Amino acid sequence: MTASDLISFARGAPSLDIIDVEGLKAAADAALTQDPGGALGYGTAIGYPPLRKLLAEQHGVAEEQVLVTNGSMQADAFLFDQLVTAGQPVVVERPTYDRTLLGLRERQADVRPVSLQTDGIDVEELAGLLEDGLRPTFAHIIPNFQNPAGYTLSLAKRKRLLELAEQYDFVIFEDDPYVKIRFAGQPLPTMLELDEGRGRVVYASSFSKTVAPGVRVGYIVGPAELVAKVRVRATNTYISPNMLAQAIVYRFCVDGGVDRSVATVNAALAERVETLCSALTKHLPEARFTAPEGGYFMWVELPDGVDVDVLLPAAEARGVTFVKGTDFLLDGGRSTLRLAYSGVRVDQIEEGVARLADAVRSLEG
Amino acid sequence: MTASDLISFARGAPSLDIIDVEGLKAAADAALTQDPGGALGYGTAIGYPPLRKLLAEQHGVAEEQVLVTNGSMQADAFLFDQLVTAGQPVVVERPTYDRTLLGLRERQADVRPVSLQTDGIDVEELAGLLEDGLRPTFAHIIPNFQNPAGYTLSLAKRKRLLELAEQYDFVIFEDDPYVKIRFAGQPLPTMLELDEGRGRVVYASSFSKTVAPGVRVGYIVGPAELVAKVRVRATNTYISPNMLAQAIVYRFCVDGGVDRSVATVNAALAERVETLCSALTKHLPEARFTAPEGGYFMWVELPDGVDVDVLLPAAEARGVTFVKGTDFLLDGGRSTLRLAYSGVRVDQIEEGVARLADAVRSLEG
Repeated sequence: MTASDLISFARGAPSLDIIDVEGLKAAADAALTQDPGGALGYGTAIGYPPLRKLLAEQHGVAEEQVLVTNGSMQADAFLFDQLVTAGQPVVVERPTYDRTLLGLRERQADVRPVSLQTDGIDVEELAGLLEDGLRPTFAHIIPNFQNPAGYTLSLAKRKRLLELAEQYDFVIFEDDPYVKIRFAGQPLPTMLELDEGRGRVVYASSFSKTVAPGVRVGYIVGPAELVAKVRVRATNTYISPNMLAQAIVYRFCVDGGVDRSVATVNAALAERVETLCSALTKHLPEARFTAPEGGYFMWVELPDGVDVDVLLPAAEARGVTFVKGTDFLLDGGRSTLRLAYSGVRVDQIEEGVARLADAVRSLEG
Repeated sequence: MTASDLISFARGAPSLDIIDVEGLKAAADAALTQDPGGALGYGTAIGYPPLRKLLAEQHGVAEEQVLVTNGSMQADAFLFDQLVTAGQPVVVERPTYDRTLLGLRERQADVRPVSLQTDGIDVEELAGLLEDGLRPTFAHIIPNFQNPAGYTLSLAKRKRLLELAEQYDFVIFEDDPYVKIRFAGQPLPTMLELDEGRGRVVYASSFSKTVAPGVRVGYIVGPAELVAKVRVRATNTYISPNMLAQAIVYRFCVDGGVDRSVATVNAALAERVETLCSALTKHLPEARFTAPEGGYFMWVELPDGVDVDVLLPAAEARGVTFVKGTDFLLDGGRSTLRLAYSGVRVDQIEEGVARLADAVRSLEG
């Protein structure tokens, strides 16, 4: 077994074959031809102004409500710096993105996980906690094709969350990097849209999944006052984010590259999910999962006796890897795993699942 | 007077005519052709590995001692996060870069300014403070063509600083973005080199002045243990810095672009300094200054009666602007100003100085 033989269901990153390298070359050339001063000068902390304007138009908000950052995790970090107070409660989904948990714990938030169901966070569990006196600063929600679960928040729950936010005076942090990576079902309105400008929602997204991760371009949309505070923080941290990369992303957007790229990515991921589900049904019939309608991830529950701490090394010894479900939880999840299908080719998937099944069998002996 | 008539000696940024736009187009194409996976994937917080390796070679250190960031101000922020403890003393030059002062004050450092002379920080003043019991965490030094003064630290003082750092157990933070922008005199060894691996120096630099500010590529070199800590912090902040921009900068370096660019920039800046000095001698003979041997900035002292708070609006009313010396000091400097010549063309300089002189005369009435 060499490293190159390893089939990785671990990393939430696209394989190179679904990135439009030639389109990005053309976008780089166009950006440097059409606006060399903008692409190569310092700029300011709001980001590349034409990209900010385009995003404001796409979301139907004022430009002052948008700030473009070096990837959306940097956006999260700035927002957490503004919104988190040590010791104050913050609601997260259970399970949720491991880096979100880390960022909140680094800032000493009182993290309150609420169960995630296949149609999104359990809003009645949340309502009960609120009735019992919980007063969170904000609720962090990944509405579409959640990381790690792959589940999507239903329209009814989106509306209910907004009602609760209004009633109990908290902010919804709508963390939405996967929204365009939908390959089945119908798109749903964002909570940002449903909020209709009442200022209850701070929205973050990214071009990592629609252009490429290496461009490191993310953004936030929120109340102008909050965005202005983040702007000051961003200025004092790095003067301005990457103007060159943002100018390239902007050209790629306006020249139709993002739409083409999304079509390519979604076709590829739909096929990968289908292959993955078939392979699991064949090799690991005891596995429980919900086929995602988009995004990069699928959550798999194995029978209670399987301990992922033991399974992972057994799997890696057989040339396949994944992320343990326990990484996305403060407690529990001993028999769960996250399978990322974004970085594996279709021809690797069945072999990867067969190796995983072999590892599961090895624990039963 | 319209904004486009304004002659700005304010911003430390290069004019577009001295940026190699065509060279960067070629570098972008080459980066995406030769290493699309590296340029467009997530990467890690250490930065684009080939660029990190190149920088390690250039500085004669191990790769583990280098971390490439989104601009050198982001590098400064990470280092300050590691090194600054609230209430603990930090030595800075007087005057120094205003954003350095801001970053230190945000972190509640006990900022201790030490006089800057035309050959660099007054090491005997510093020695006196150390003898009297000052125990700084680190001394922040901009050794070459200092911002805002334009002065360069002599070799003798570099050595003396290292002796003091050894004797009194503090770190030298060598903040060196302008080192390659030398258009007169002889290059001096960095304190990083002179330290010969003893770990007394943390070095930061940038490609903003040798490639373009909009690429936002900076880096640190330091003890491997400190760099490892910064790496964790960087991972938790943004996963990875801009891989695309760093891959482009790397290609620009290895294809000779940086050397060509430095030659262009230095020839242009030498001419601008000469023009600026001549114009000051002609229009403002009472101004005192030292012609810089490199960099972007010249410090000008006007007679004591001139108050820059009054001069600046008078100058702007006449179509010229600059940064007040007081912005770079905790106190004093009422009659000093920083003139940046990096962003003005030669044909604007004499007119700009004539307007400035007219503003000075208007205060004398």
